[in-house]
Amino acid sequence: MRLVIIGGVAAGLSAASRARRIDRSLEIVVLEKGPTISWAACGLPYLLEGRVRSRDELIVYTPEFFQRERDIEVRTSAEVAAILHSARQVALAGGERLHYDRLVVATGARPDLGLLRGQVAENVFRLHSLEETERLLRFLQIDRPRRAVVVGAGYIGLEAAGALRTHGLAVTIIDSAEHVLSRPDPGLTKTVRGHLERFRIELRLGEPVRAIEPDRVNDTPCDLVLLAAGLLPNVEIAAEAGIDLGRTGAIRTDDHMETSLNGVYAVGDCAETAHLVTGRPVWIPLGTTANKMGRVAGANAAGRRERFPGVTGTSIVQVCGLGIAMTGLSVAEARREGFDPISARIEARERARYFWGRPVTVELVADRNTRRLLGGLVLGEQGIAGRINVIAAALAARMRIDDFEYLDLAYAPPLANVWDPLLIAAHHLKKGSA
Amino acid sequence: MRLVIIGGVAAGLSAASRARRIDRSLEIVVLEKGPTISWAACGLPYLLEGRVRSRDELIVYTPEFFQRERDIEVRTSAEVAAILHSARQVALAGGERLHYDRLVVATGARPDLGLLRGQVAENVFRLHSLEETERLLRFLQIDRPRRAVVVGAGYIGLEAAGALRTHGLAVTIIDSAEHVLSRPDPGLTKTVRGHLERFRIELRLGEPVRAIEPDRVNDTPCDLVLLAAGLLPNVEIAAEAGIDLGRTGAIRTDDHMETSLNGVYAVGDCAETAHLVTGRPVWIPLGTTANKMGRVAGANAAGRRERFPGVTGTSIVQVCGLGIAMTGLSVAEARREGFDPISARIEARERARYFWGRPVTVELVADRNTRRLLGGLVLGEQGIAGRINVIAAALAARMRIDDFEYLDLAYAPPLANVWDPLLIAAHHLKKGSA
Repeated sequence: MRLVIIGGVAAGLSAASRARRIDRSLEIVVLEKGPTISWAACGLPYLLEGRVRSRDELIVYTPEFFQRERDIEVRTSAEVAAILHSARQVALAGGERLHYDRLVVATGARPDLGLLRGQVAENVFRLHSLEETERLLRFLQIDRPRRAVVVGAGYIGLEAAGALRTHGLAVTIIDSAEHVLSRPDPGLTKTVRGHLERFRIELRLGEPVRAIEPDRVNDTPCDLVLLAAGLLPNVEIAAEAGIDLGRTGAIRTDDHMETSLNGVYAVGDCAETAHLVTGRPVWIPLGTTANKMGRVAGANAAGRRERFPGVTGTSIVQVCGLGIAMTGLSVAEARREGFDPISARIEARERARYFWGRPVTVELVADRNTRRLLGGLVLGEQGIAGRINVIAAALAARMRIDDFEYLDLAYAPPLANVWDPLLIAAHHLKKGSA
Repeated sequence: MRLVIIGGVAAGLSAASRARRIDRSLEIVVLEKGPTISWAACGLPYLLEGRVRSRDELIVYTPEFFQRERDIEVRTSAEVAAILHSARQVALAGGERLHYDRLVVATGARPDLGLLRGQVAENVFRLHSLEETERLLRFLQIDRPRRAVVVGAGYIGLEAAGALRTHGLAVTIIDSAEHVLSRPDPGLTKTVRGHLERFRIELRLGEPVRAIEPDRVNDTPCDLVLLAAGLLPNVEIAAEAGIDLGRTGAIRTDDHMETSLNGVYAVGDCAETAHLVTGRPVWIPLGTTANKMGRVAGANAAGRRERFPGVTGTSIVQVCGLGIAMTGLSVAEARREGFDPISARIEARERARYFWGRPVTVELVADRNTRRLLGGLVLGEQGIAGRINVIAAALAARMRIDDFEYLDLAYAPPLANVWDPLLIAAHHLKKGSA
């Protein structure tokens, strides 16, 4: 019985490891098209920035580790050209064919290079692999560029802009959308714009990128272009094999992470999952979700029957010291999904005043009729992750404002405030809903 | 229409302020027996330690503020001797009588002084008022004591022990209980003992205090005694007025914070509330609960109909830099409450390894049959409050292990880990329950 996994980063290796823990006798083969496995993609902006000193810090495990410790065969530079499901085979680019009994597709995502129209200049980069990040670092050292344009105001674009600013470059971020972080939320965009301005990073929104040339993007002259816009799921070989895609363009899965083909699972940045607030399939490619999906698919491929409930769309990013965390729906998204949203945004101290508590901004969104919480946003320097996680738990539990506003949250002067900003936001939301 | 409130600290003033916001015409009188109102009792250990520099930092509002800004009359040094409910009057110690239409009892709690048997020596202190904390600070400066015994290993005792150690004293903590922090949990006690030993604080448990003398407690010589054991609710005037007490000894309340007497509410450290895990009344006197109870009672006294759902018993304390947070039931408590508890305790990094993530310990407790989460414990230096709050939210929502283990928690390398320690603990718990 052989399990083949296409993709050797977060989702694929999670699946492999979990399957091995459940079934000691399964033959497990991981096929990775790149030269490196098990690297922390989310750490690349910090490698660029310098807070992570070397690429080695970002590599968690080697193929040798998997072979020796987990009896999992990992092949690098092994690109899969096709899935031949009727024969239960994958065809490698070199022509070799490999039989599988169960298959996990973890092919990931890639930046949309449509903008480049084929012309890849030396000073155009993506933050999408260890190798390209290192090439960018060498370029910074040797060519000493002074002006950078970052295309894309999503989390990679914002993190990369901060990192390039740390290197002393003048940075302009350009995005065709009217808002940052793919969240239609004018308040958030305003806050981020103000914060970036303090660091002299220019944010140009609502500006479609018409042309990327070696010395300019649109009309903005630059010495360096970083592409961080438009991620696309790598679904081509899956689609060619007859695996159904969802409306988002990513691979459709059920709550066991199984695709439309029996015994074939899809996980990570190439796959859809359910949104726990809307109940609808979404494609939100993130490392933490990739690991969870992989864990569930690995168990199911090894004969268990486990379920991945879905996501609430929680994400967090640090931009020039400002933590930005969000989960669930913004007001605009809630309206688009057919809810009648109400919201409250407050600023309050995250610790007691006499313990130098810093301000934290919390926004909560709820549905006027059912009073169910729909989403939240937390901004600040400290204590951001914990607070967004409380909201994420409340969303998963389908909590109402009235349950949330008296949550028994911890208080001690050096660590928290007597009325946590989350509860103050809930009070305001309740007032607005009365 | 007059609302009288007995007690001018957290619970009483929360009630007064909320009632005012709801009803501008209500006459509101707050009677505080002490000289100071609105002071942060939870800050006293930090005033002792020196991290809070002056008592003024701990005083939030003055009586003048309440009169001027909120049209609330606050009388200090106004001790209530009796509640005469048939006449709707409170009798002050000086003989004056004051009519009320609605009454909020927020009389607080006091340290049990039974141990002292009347003999109050000059070097015996409680951390229970601004004045006594200042007296202790003067004693430290002038008398230069070298050895302290702290009686009580609850959160005030542990915080005070750390503060006295900061002042350079040799510190011994004595408690008759076998465990710290009123939580029957051998693992927790072991961890705290080990941590205190690193700071050369001696912890003596299971040792009843037989005698407190000016130069020794039991057989332990000392120059200073700090009493932090045995809090008692101040229920005497309520009980004499015919207000029912609960089995815990505190004032029984319904979920509107109303007592057995119509129109009389009890809030804060003198009152019971419901425990959301067991469904039973509990007495867990804490500042954050006091504020919430006050807020609800104030609304109801002003004619609203609001509900306080209860608590999960969340608390957090920092002892010599170690954060200790807990909520819900320990294994022993769960067993005592008739559950069939299972638990898992793990240690994991709170952030990515390459961002110097520090270890965090998480314990989760669940019921074997229903798989419902019953409690949790989080220990570590950072990110403790946020994690215990996620567990508290899960308890309030009656979440099961299976819902909890795939919560969509935030991840970004500088702020969180890809598998949060909470989720790792849930995986282990699930393995143990299979």
